[in-house]
Amino acid sequence: MGKNVAEKLIDSHLADGRFEDVEVGKEIDLEMDQTLTQDATGTMVMLEFEAMGIPRVQTELSAQYVDHNLIQSDFKNPDDHLFLRSACKKFGAWYSRPGNGVSHPVHQERFGEPGKTLIGSDSHSPAAGAIGMLAIGAGGLDVAMAMAGKPYTINMPEVWGVKLTGELPDWVSAKDVILTMLERHDVDGGVGQIIEYYGPGLDSLSCMDRHVIANMGTELGATSTVFPSDDEVRAFLRRQGREEVFEEIKADEDADYDEYEEINLSELEPKIAKPSSPGNVVPVREVEGQEIYQSYVGSSANPGFRDFASAAEIVDGRQVHDRVSFDVNPTSRQILENLMNSGHLQMLTRAGARIHQAGCNGCIGMGQAPATGQISVRTVPRNFPGRSGTKEDAVYLVSPETAAASALTGEITDPRDLADLYDMEYPNAETPDQISVNTDQLVEPLSAEEAKNVDLEKGPNVVSLPEFEPLQNSFDLPVLLKVGDDISTDEIMPAGSRILPYRSNIPKISEFVFEQVDESFFDRAMEHQDNGFAVVGGTNYGQGSSREHAAIAPRWLGTRVKIAKSYARIHRQNLANFGILPLLFKDDESYDSIDQGDTLQFRNLREQVQSGTDVELTNADKDETYVVEHDLSDRELKMVLEGSQISVVKKEFAGVEA
Amino acid sequence: MGKNVAEKLIDSHLADGRFEDVEVGKEIDLEMDQTLTQDATGTMVMLEFEAMGIPRVQTELSAQYVDHNLIQSDFKNPDDHLFLRSACKKFGAWYSRPGNGVSHPVHQERFGEPGKTLIGSDSHSPAAGAIGMLAIGAGGLDVAMAMAGKPYTINMPEVWGVKLTGELPDWVSAKDVILTMLERHDVDGGVGQIIEYYGPGLDSLSCMDRHVIANMGTELGATSTVFPSDDEVRAFLRRQGREEVFEEIKADEDADYDEYEEINLSELEPKIAKPSSPGNVVPVREVEGQEIYQSYVGSSANPGFRDFASAAEIVDGRQVHDRVSFDVNPTSRQILENLMNSGHLQMLTRAGARIHQAGCNGCIGMGQAPATGQISVRTVPRNFPGRSGTKEDAVYLVSPETAAASALTGEITDPRDLADLYDMEYPNAETPDQISVNTDQLVEPLSAEEAKNVDLEKGPNVVSLPEFEPLQNSFDLPVLLKVGDDISTDEIMPAGSRILPYRSNIPKISEFVFEQVDESFFDRAMEHQDNGFAVVGGTNYGQGSSREHAAIAPRWLGTRVKIAKSYARIHRQNLANFGILPLLFKDDESYDSIDQGDTLQFRNLREQVQSGTDVELTNADKDETYVVEHDLSDRELKMVLEGSQISVVKKEFAGVEA
Repeated sequence: MGKNVAEKLIDSHLADGRFEDVEVGKEIDLEMDQTLTQDATGTMVMLEFEAMGIPRVQTELSAQYVDHNLIQSDFKNPDDHLFLRSACKKFGAWYSRPGNGVSHPVHQERFGEPGKTLIGSDSHSPAAGAIGMLAIGAGGLDVAMAMAGKPYTINMPEVWGVKLTGELPDWVSAKDVILTMLERHDVDGGVGQIIEYYGPGLDSLSCMDRHVIANMGTELGATSTVFPSDDEVRAFLRRQGREEVFEEIKADEDADYDEYEEINLSELEPKIAKPSSPGNVVPVREVEGQEIYQSYVGSSANPGFRDFASAAEIVDGRQVHDRVSFDVNPTSRQILENLMNSGHLQMLTRAGARIHQAGCNGCIGMGQAPATGQISVRTVPRNFPGRSGTKEDAVYLVSPETAAASALTGEITDPRDLADLYDMEYPNAETPDQISVNTDQLVEPLSAEEAKNVDLEKGPNVVSLPEFEPLQNSFDLPVLLKVGDDISTDEIMPAGSRILPYRSNIPKISEFVFEQVDESFFDRAMEHQDNGFAVVGGTNYGQGSSREHAAIAPRWLGTRVKIAKSYARIHRQNLANFGILPLLFKDDESYDSIDQGDTLQFRNLREQVQSGTDVELTNADKDETYVVEHDLSDRELKMVLEGSQISVVKKEFAGVEA
Repeated sequence: MGKNVAEKLIDSHLADGRFEDVEVGKEIDLEMDQTLTQDATGTMVMLEFEAMGIPRVQTELSAQYVDHNLIQSDFKNPDDHLFLRSACKKFGAWYSRPGNGVSHPVHQERFGEPGKTLIGSDSHSPAAGAIGMLAIGAGGLDVAMAMAGKPYTINMPEVWGVKLTGELPDWVSAKDVILTMLERHDVDGGVGQIIEYYGPGLDSLSCMDRHVIANMGTELGATSTVFPSDDEVRAFLRRQGREEVFEEIKADEDADYDEYEEINLSELEPKIAKPSSPGNVVPVREVEGQEIYQSYVGSSANPGFRDFASAAEIVDGRQVHDRVSFDVNPTSRQILENLMNSGHLQMLTRAGARIHQAGCNGCIGMGQAPATGQISVRTVPRNFPGRSGTKEDAVYLVSPETAAASALTGEITDPRDLADLYDMEYPNAETPDQISVNTDQLVEPLSAEEAKNVDLEKGPNVVSLPEFEPLQNSFDLPVLLKVGDDISTDEIMPAGSRILPYRSNIPKISEFVFEQVDESFFDRAMEHQDNGFAVVGGTNYGQGSSREHAAIAPRWLGTRVKIAKSYARIHRQNLANFGILPLLFKDDESYDSIDQGDTLQFRNLREQVQSGTDVELTNADKDETYVVEHDLSDRELKMVLEGSQISVVKKEFAGVEA
């Protein structure tokens, strides 16, 4: 039988074994051709890479972007930038300079290559699936391992074929496609899946449109999203001056999928995700008319030339409403340049836009926070609570068309109404065939010889990783926190301009763990740091961003065990990587029975987890015994038992060197 | 005898009395035609204006800018913006929206009018003197009083005539003129003076060049700087579409000055102010070759089209050094637009610039801080310690030419070397005759009728002003802090992205008073808040920014008395406005004798200050008695005795209403 695109990509990258023997749900090891890191996670990756003692990056290509921490309120951000620059020179990675742009679209444009694999320490790394790559988001340590040449282990996902038919109507764009998927399947609908788009509807989606959809596949909880590499990909690479790397990759005629879905593009309408989940999607019509404070265009979820050009042509010759902050965040220097050449940036500026430097900016809470109690409509991928920087925020996720329409009227507006309101035709902006390509701000890796003279530049904010103890056999752990379903890593380890600068400083950043959920968490945790504690959660625990700090910092505070109904894939891996035992409830009753403050007694824990998947524990306060389970592979179990993957690897390398 | 420009402006605005009776050093009351406020000081101004109970602004024109607090890390900045927007609508002021640009150049372009007076709650307000206005920086409360229609009181300054001859050589520009003035006269050389430039050298200085010089007259400690209104001003206004407000104002043929100075422009060379004072000026040659981390272009000290265009043409077709963060901060939306139209912004972007939104940004420590121990060359007006956001920073003040040259080489570079290094001719960029004028982001005041329906929008960060008690007659005050000369308001009340958001919240912002100077100050102050304390300083105490928070917050903490060798003008006024008694040492011995921690005993203080200028006090720890003095006018004395000017005005208004 033939293969689909996802299967072809996996087949060509299996580190060992035959594709025919691969079973869904079982671990597979994949060779990683490329790595992507950004500054908010990359400082830790580079520290981990340094700790392993490997002199040079072993991948075909590793690229380090600086796109998150651009504000530079003090020395911390710029110190990190200089550290990353020195690490890239020393280890042999590309360095994308601050302000050069957002990692995912820049990577796709400059380094993306159909048929290759990529692992990125950013949950939106699957965006590269837009051009026929298999790209996966992971915790920093997994990326550091890939940089060291190790294969990446995942459980073989199901492949979910989504057939696109028809053609997008006017005023409806790629963002509405992925919002429709989220409306249908919510934030965990893609867990354990690779989503593969195919069908005649692809013809009306450019590579950057596909990027929008692949990028936000992460919001569905998917392991990755892939598109075929077709003529559109060839045209995209040609425009970028890199047609030579094109390779056609399409599903075989007789390929099959584990799951099926169909979307008729012609039937779609403008959609909006209400606060505070990307899965909270309704038609724009349902919430139109509400007064807004902010309209935000940009981010990796709408990074294409057409996204900005559409917004520009909608506001062209008009003025945005006088209470609206119209924040435009160009994706990259290259797009900025092309938008100036085409006159679109002038339209935006003239209409009242605030043009920010190229980067993630407000999408990750680095500035541009909305006012108290005010609505912000944004083209970003996520609207988790507080991610904007403002507590109890009201962020709505929309297409650039809906954002621009709402900026003009000052209220949430279905862009189809612009036709009547302003006698406007749908702009239908497209990327010009000839674009200006700007590679100058990507600093090439040094040769191994040159790299020998490079020292790592570590400012005072770059703090070495703490060491973690092996798993104890028996302990009593208070349940320091009990939370519900869909807790995101933004809630576990918030980002934003106040906190992101500490990404290279674990003791300091730990002060902010669960701050949005429970302000007293840190103080209570410090009381229990030595003896440890447990955290209890619901389903899809740890969804969202790939940040491994959501595991490292809780671990540093004393978290030994988590028990949840289910885990988001990347976060579960991060927990294992840093020696937190991720247990699973077998029934809802056990979850319901445990209260915050209860003490859970674990006995013979090491024996229990090694001898099977069941783990028995006692609730000392309720005099109840529960049986929960773990689903750790032998590889993962080893990390938990040793205290962290770093301890495992250290031992391995010590063995090799001895 | 004829009058100079400064005298003409004063003569035409005397609120009472005859110009012939005016004496240098004596108080004069000036009618204020216009007011300028920015967001970091304006929220307090609007709260003060509200507290007075006056329904509408009484000036010819009042304009509120939002240029300082643009980062929006959380709700605080945007809440302030919405408050200011509502206050402008309610009180009848123009509202320049966030991202529309830096107050001083925008005001000059849109509202500047030769022959008018302006008072601004920003120390760089004198910039408007570039087009023949008399513009003065003041504390917020003084601006609120002017908005209420009250004249502004100053001591009649000396007028210091600076004759410009010759013509600027290639690679030397207006910034080098004012840096030369600072090299000659340091940061207190202009205290008590209005600096008036005249002579044939003016012909080679555009109105924005003059803005550079007038703006940084503040760094000399001058009360204001004025230029004549000549054909160049007419041309400037014509380009801005406002030629109708032009009026020629030149010194009479037989005019005289209190002081004389001459600068032969032809003899100037590129200058640089070393850390950490604008007065620390040397030729660039003296420090060339030092490695830099950052090159920063923009701010009100180099806001003109030519400033950006020169930098752009220098880096055009080249790449900035790969360790340099090349930060470009456009002055305004209008300049951004014109730089795009002329292609200069494209040159900058292409060469590696990070293009930031229009505003003050890094100049006021709102982002763009340099890395630890790294040099930053900047076209901004100030390099006080820590103002960049990084403690122990190394900020050098330069012209755009020097900044761009250094960005290319990665080290401090005399721009004249570019001729050899890159075979470059001096770009000599000039503002095009036809420019695009953008007024759309200036929101017009509402009519009085419409304003009635407007409510002030006060978010949770907008906190009412605390009330202050009248001066006590006798008390013992510990000297909580003793500092040296030239302490700036940046050191008393730091700015930066962490602190500026609290400008509308006195109790909170008080936590940061003297943080750069003495980290334990706040804790010690809180122990003495109820009984009060004294602070002892050297000469030019309170130089720099006009921020009244440098008086309000120390007062809230418990400061009752300051004793210094001399005060910067605006800060002295702010102290009086908020009821801190500003005493002066009569001799250096008394200053030398007092140590931090000593207790100073004041007896019959109210009687002493009312019966004469001498004040006797005893140092309980040294058993010494000192005689110090005050130079408060009756008007100022009243404020100190009552506790604050607000208390005085409240009583006045109560009397009027009764």
